[in-house]
Amino acid sequence: MSPNEGISCPVPISSYPQIVVAHGGGGRLTHQLIEKIFMAAFGSPELETRHDGAVLDISERGSPNRMPRLAFTTDSYVVRPLFFPGGDIGSLAVHGSVNDLAMCGARPLFLSAGFILEEGLPMETLWRVALSMGEAARASGVRVATGDTKVVEKGKGDGIFINTAGIGVLERDLRLAPSSVREGDAILLSGDIGRHGIAVLSAREGLSFESDIQSDSAPLARPVLELIRAGLDIHCMRDLTRGGLGTALVEIAEAARVRIAVDETSIPVREDVQGACEILGFDPIYVANEGRFICFVPEKEASRALDILKSDPLAAEARSIGRVTSSHERGLVVLRSQVGATRIIDMLTGEQLPRIC
Amino acid sequence: MSPNEGISCPVPISSYPQIVVAHGGGGRLTHQLIEKIFMAAFGSPELETRHDGAVLDISERGSPNRMPRLAFTTDSYVVRPLFFPGGDIGSLAVHGSVNDLAMCGARPLFLSAGFILEEGLPMETLWRVALSMGEAARASGVRVATGDTKVVEKGKGDGIFINTAGIGVLERDLRLAPSSVREGDAILLSGDIGRHGIAVLSAREGLSFESDIQSDSAPLARPVLELIRAGLDIHCMRDLTRGGLGTALVEIAEAARVRIAVDETSIPVREDVQGACEILGFDPIYVANEGRFICFVPEKEASRALDILKSDPLAAEARSIGRVTSSHERGLVVLRSQVGATRIIDMLTGEQLPRIC
Repeated sequence: MSPNEGISCPVPISSYPQIVVAHGGGGRLTHQLIEKIFMAAFGSPELETRHDGAVLDISERGSPNRMPRLAFTTDSYVVRPLFFPGGDIGSLAVHGSVNDLAMCGARPLFLSAGFILEEGLPMETLWRVALSMGEAARASGVRVATGDTKVVEKGKGDGIFINTAGIGVLERDLRLAPSSVREGDAILLSGDIGRHGIAVLSAREGLSFESDIQSDSAPLARPVLELIRAGLDIHCMRDLTRGGLGTALVEIAEAARVRIAVDETSIPVREDVQGACEILGFDPIYVANEGRFICFVPEKEASRALDILKSDPLAAEARSIGRVTSSHERGLVVLRSQVGATRIIDMLTGEQLPRIC
Repeated sequence: MSPNEGISCPVPISSYPQIVVAHGGGGRLTHQLIEKIFMAAFGSPELETRHDGAVLDISERGSPNRMPRLAFTTDSYVVRPLFFPGGDIGSLAVHGSVNDLAMCGARPLFLSAGFILEEGLPMETLWRVALSMGEAARASGVRVATGDTKVVEKGKGDGIFINTAGIGVLERDLRLAPSSVREGDAILLSGDIGRHGIAVLSAREGLSFESDIQSDSAPLARPVLELIRAGLDIHCMRDLTRGGLGTALVEIAEAARVRIAVDETSIPVREDVQGACEILGFDPIYVANEGRFICFVPEKEASRALDILKSDPLAAEARSIGRVTSSHERGLVVLRSQVGATRIIDMLTGEQLPRIC
């Protein structure tokens, strides 16, 4: 029935005839899907930057006045369960898009909210989620400007799915992208990793660990804007969601074609999170976060950037975890472990924790 | 677990303890959900306009330069089946958001694309849908600037759900909204109604009617921009999606607090669509369209507006179907039937055709 039936699918049917859960995991298979299906079908210059959001130049498309550039981003949220220690799908749907805008260097202004509800969802649950979204939006300085609601039959959805798209405005003419990363850049991490993934999993599976592990879900625009307003020469930022720190580093190394060296001992992981990961067989560098980011800055600005980050409670534990050691080669991330051994890390392959965002 | 548990839900649990399919039908229950849950929880001035999209003034939020106003809109698409005569979920997801931007008086520029895929979806199906989206975007003059993909387990979704959010720019300082509608306005309809709903239903249920009924799904920006660039004093526009022409008229009458009189004989319905509606027990004024809109203009500009619309193939059958007969009263829509009788019409109540968009 489609006019496109004749154009053959660029993902070889022999390797993946069907979508598997790992296609949504944020790791290698998600990247294949983006490159082979979506880039091929949509092919827009904005997608080519391979960033968390697009930077739009509205004025180049017909306006006579020079306008500030805008950031535009979207994410759908399918986290299970809907409520978890430290957050819920509503606050997560706000923080996620606010953070993607911040990673573009933008001040978040407006969100859209698209709901896909499953028949039979308790009205009270929808109300609690909507209230939480509204509170998170006010706390993040954004307004929900437009929305949409669809309902699917029981068994065709899973309670609530939310999509938020966000619009923000760039205050400075920074070009934050993997392509701006340079040899010698320091890599700053805003805090301890792994809490969001473990908090969601423990709520889902009814696991209880020695201490109560809360999600790190939080809006990152404030510390990011402090960095930007300080006039620092930031090269790239990325929040550490699906696929965790490890996947984010590999994504940037590959897109920038640089070699990255990271010192594992410098990566903060709370003892209870480390313990939970050992029990579950997870590597914390691949566990999802929703309030953590990495930032690439020239080495000579690293100490000032850290001082600024540490002055904000959301990045109080910020530290330098490594640097870009050489450029002009195939992207590579080398991790020096606690015992001094080095290993090359790859993007998350397969699926570690489905539906954590 | 949520901090909001104490704030009681504004939809009385006695009336609707749970979400039902009709909450997504675009009629009375959808409106209750928006007013009681989402407006209460989000409460932003942009939502107060009760329009298909929001008009954003970026410059009032900190920029020194006067910027053109932007339109921002979102819609999720859950149509079943994914492919139907005259379109598919991919082209629909482009046309829907392009049309919502056009209804705000904006030239559509950029779309986001958020996919929620069900495990087991054939890769070939995703490819066909993505290709169709890409083609529809190019044909509509918009670029897909940013995207996201999530995967849910088999039985927790239904093949493909798509969310698109759109950004457009207003070329003129029109205030298109129900509140701009005035007594004496003519109501123009861009073409025949009911084809999209019947086309989707026939594909879903395997019905075959005497002739092949194709969806009217199409991008409306071109004829709308022709109206706007002609300098006409347009008061309000709305595309006739879920809930159809009837619901759109009642929505505007209620929001504008005006009385609307429509002549049923002037509403074009194709003979095969009328026949299908009679067999199925549907009233065509409530059947969904995806390429039709109504436009409120001062009576003295109606004839010029019609000439402009008719010069575009997408609105070749445009005609005047009624007018705003008085203001300052409770919103009311009166339909004069073919036999001269009048009836008051309400928004669609219950659910006529679930998941047609």
